[in-house]
Amino acid sequence: MTLQSLYTGETWQKLRARAEVMNQPQNHLKHLIAEPNRLNAFSLTAADVFYDFSRQRLDTITLELLFELARVRRALEKFSAMTKGEKLNVTENRAALHTATRDFSSTSLYLDGKDILSEIREVNRQIKAFSDQVHGGMICGCTGKRFRHIVVIGIGGSYLGTEFVSTALKSYADRGIDLYYLSNVDIHNFGAIVREIDPEATLWLIISKSYTTPETLSNEGLARAFMAEKGIDPSKHIVTVTGKGSPGDNPANPVLQSFNMFDFIGGRYSVCSAVGAVPLSLYLGYEMFERFLKGAEAMDSHALHSPIQENMPLVAALIAIWNNNFLKYPAQAIIPYSAPLAKLAPHVQQLNMESNGKMVNTEGVFMEEPCGTIIFGEPGTNAQHSFFQLAHQGRAFPIEFIGVIHPLFPQYRTLSKGVTNHQELWANLLSQPMALATGKEDADPARYFPGNRPSSTLILKDLSPENVGKLLSFYEARTVFEAFIWGINPFDQFGVELGKVLAGEIRKEMAARNKDSTHSLDSADPITRFYLEMLFSE
Amino acid sequence: MTLQSLYTGETWQKLRARAEVMNQPQNHLKHLIAEPNRLNAFSLTAADVFYDFSRQRLDTITLELLFELARVRRALEKFSAMTKGEKLNVTENRAALHTATRDFSSTSLYLDGKDILSEIREVNRQIKAFSDQVHGGMICGCTGKRFRHIVVIGIGGSYLGTEFVSTALKSYADRGIDLYYLSNVDIHNFGAIVREIDPEATLWLIISKSYTTPETLSNEGLARAFMAEKGIDPSKHIVTVTGKGSPGDNPANPVLQSFNMFDFIGGRYSVCSAVGAVPLSLYLGYEMFERFLKGAEAMDSHALHSPIQENMPLVAALIAIWNNNFLKYPAQAIIPYSAPLAKLAPHVQQLNMESNGKMVNTEGVFMEEPCGTIIFGEPGTNAQHSFFQLAHQGRAFPIEFIGVIHPLFPQYRTLSKGVTNHQELWANLLSQPMALATGKEDADPARYFPGNRPSSTLILKDLSPENVGKLLSFYEARTVFEAFIWGINPFDQFGVELGKVLAGEIRKEMAARNKDSTHSLDSADPITRFYLEMLFSE
Repeated sequence: MTLQSLYTGETWQKLRARAEVMNQPQNHLKHLIAEPNRLNAFSLTAADVFYDFSRQRLDTITLELLFELARVRRALEKFSAMTKGEKLNVTENRAALHTATRDFSSTSLYLDGKDILSEIREVNRQIKAFSDQVHGGMICGCTGKRFRHIVVIGIGGSYLGTEFVSTALKSYADRGIDLYYLSNVDIHNFGAIVREIDPEATLWLIISKSYTTPETLSNEGLARAFMAEKGIDPSKHIVTVTGKGSPGDNPANPVLQSFNMFDFIGGRYSVCSAVGAVPLSLYLGYEMFERFLKGAEAMDSHALHSPIQENMPLVAALIAIWNNNFLKYPAQAIIPYSAPLAKLAPHVQQLNMESNGKMVNTEGVFMEEPCGTIIFGEPGTNAQHSFFQLAHQGRAFPIEFIGVIHPLFPQYRTLSKGVTNHQELWANLLSQPMALATGKEDADPARYFPGNRPSSTLILKDLSPENVGKLLSFYEARTVFEAFIWGINPFDQFGVELGKVLAGEIRKEMAARNKDSTHSLDSADPITRFYLEMLFSE
Repeated sequence: MTLQSLYTGETWQKLRARAEVMNQPQNHLKHLIAEPNRLNAFSLTAADVFYDFSRQRLDTITLELLFELARVRRALEKFSAMTKGEKLNVTENRAALHTATRDFSSTSLYLDGKDILSEIREVNRQIKAFSDQVHGGMICGCTGKRFRHIVVIGIGGSYLGTEFVSTALKSYADRGIDLYYLSNVDIHNFGAIVREIDPEATLWLIISKSYTTPETLSNEGLARAFMAEKGIDPSKHIVTVTGKGSPGDNPANPVLQSFNMFDFIGGRYSVCSAVGAVPLSLYLGYEMFERFLKGAEAMDSHALHSPIQENMPLVAALIAIWNNNFLKYPAQAIIPYSAPLAKLAPHVQQLNMESNGKMVNTEGVFMEEPCGTIIFGEPGTNAQHSFFQLAHQGRAFPIEFIGVIHPLFPQYRTLSKGVTNHQELWANLLSQPMALATGKEDADPARYFPGNRPSSTLILKDLSPENVGKLLSFYEARTVFEAFIWGINPFDQFGVELGKVLAGEIRKEMAARNKDSTHSLDSADPITRFYLEMLFSE
């Protein structure tokens, strides 16, 4: 099938017309879900994950049109090309091979003449050996103390994914090691962490592909000053994860060990690379990390090999586009009914908003309609007692509910109103999508619920490392599928550059003033100058 | 001035027309901010807080129209009526007197014939005495151990505000007491906390106005079972904060102490009542809590006594309405460049979205345009490395930046690129609003920044308890001012009721099945039944 252009293509036009139909009262969700066989026809199971989109505002005709959109926009072909190393990151002329980091099935994968699978596996062997040696006490701090505190210095993609996984799998952390994230350049972040750690038992893990990120370098500087003050040898307490040949991989600046970060893996897709592998192996043990990888591989394999109509992340991407471009919802919430998944929303917030918050397509043509969605979320039931008032009676936004069948802590079986805590949680997980969908008539307008508010529900069997890996891969695949359909590049992020440039100019003024208290700040614009004077005069 | 009706009123119409003008290219923010005196004309200082709205998409004419809107909608009069005890919560026939909780200036305030100021002060005296006795070791656990762990059991407004304040003021916590929040009914929440606490040194603080919240009762049940298992006398380890005569204030069920929660203070406005006073006094000492109250009082006093054009929270409310209804931004981000303020956005998310996510006005008439905004946020610079790509080049949303002049931890002065960490943070705090406002031309569309993206900047001198109190009051006042202008009731939340009703029905089915494994689930709708079978069959 030839590639159909996005907005002028026949399918997009048909979907627009379909949205008008779906906006009519007879297609209110309360009617749609009353149809026999609704759940069966609008749900999928893959890699033991259940995905229910029966309470999305679509019918069979809409769904078929969305499948057609995936076909004419060649979503599956692009996904396959991505996993084979095609340089889909066109603006930076790079491949996007995060799926290779968890590919246990293939024997080789060549990129620019090199077998990157063997390179990845070699790095993983090094990480396994290193973490085993740390856990076994063969690698210790400079005073002989075992490492008990790991401080990850890294920002954005260098920690958000890892934080999601380490929070989700915290109950597996049995290595006597605590993990801290020093992401923000804010001195409060550093100050709060050094109050908690034992310098002799602390390993500083500095993660930056380019090793030029100002926040990370500032924090490394503080860490080194802190170690100097405490008499700690930094070459025995610093590990780096960075690109080959970066300033962090410099023999003149010796560190305990340096692990390679490949340029074909972007920050927000890097959890399964050394970026996540080093901290997660130290925190959980390499075996747990590998189980996590295997879960991600299972979902990758599903995304790669399933036809459109059975392809869970692709269907989720199509629904996201339907909600965004056709039903015109500007935002989406992710609400896991599982406290350990509390950091999923912040991770997906970066993954999706940074990948797809774009205004040009891969040919450099401006998009006619906004792509990219505002993603936010908190765990349920907390979110119900926070912002669900708006979801039910105010501005509508689609919600992705996530449930877990088997909780940890099965020993607590106390009943309240006849049910366990976990059952109470599920009573809410089940009631919310239904309340949002159906609404309720009421003579009192303040108690009237319009309903027709769409949601999906994802169910995991439990919070095993494998299932957390599947969730990670699901959201990665969903994100790139959205981009492939829109025809945008989900792997660059030029939108963050301008702020960096302006910050660099301001930093220069500050540095000059630090050196010379009479340095004039007149070259800054009046508003910026006002703030600089405010900061320096205090 | 007579009350002008909202949408058909002359002012609303003029604002609509003005939005068309402001949407024209000559009113791009890069032009607006270039005007001489821009910052001075579009900023305010109150209670030592600086509020800069120079990079909002408004000019003097717009601002005058917004002031007129506040006048014709009687925003200040309603605020004043609120603080005097008028029953503005019309659907529940209640006053909204959270400002009374920090009123140190008045001598009395009568509501329904009772002086509530003396009642509030009496409760605060009890709280001071109680926390002093806990800190002094006069009140201990049943085995004589001092209390070192406080577990707050409460959800929504019973913890979100307290969590914001306790996180912001963590560095003042010198009483050897750790604070845990058991909000979610999710057993993972309970399981993770009981791994950390010493049962003999743990005080359980149960917070619920009605004492009927299922999540809170479930968690109380678990806490009691846990104490029974550990041989702890619950009457010596439980404290309640609840309404008079609620099931939590029942002499038949003795607790260590019970503090009164007044029905004229709503959950999301309750941080300054016993809801926040008990945990924060235990965590920080009552004196610190009182300093926090005094800061809130200062901002209340400003909001109550300042004319419209100098009234900081009112101007912020007007700008929020301008962005929402006229420039049509559906969401707003709150980005504090201060890690201790990390829990501000989740608090304001509840405060604002639950207050103003409404579809009817106080007369019970449906609103013609959406009110209520999606609020989300993470600290900067973290947010820059997460979702700011979308802010700069994707879907635009207004941002509220927050900066703090003096950080804690002044001892860390290491320079990186010539600046301290705190200066690096400020370089970013200053560059982002400017980059968003001005944008940048570029021949390469992928590197083009459209700019014209609005933001405000709030500056605090430091993170003192007083300043955190001002911030709390600022957002409370801003929220109710929005509601007063729209003419909606910001104090009820009927939108959360339908989910509760449906959850109750599902809970009943679960309880019946727990008692009798042959209980049929056929009375549930097919989708819900499917999930119930899934949960019970595993």
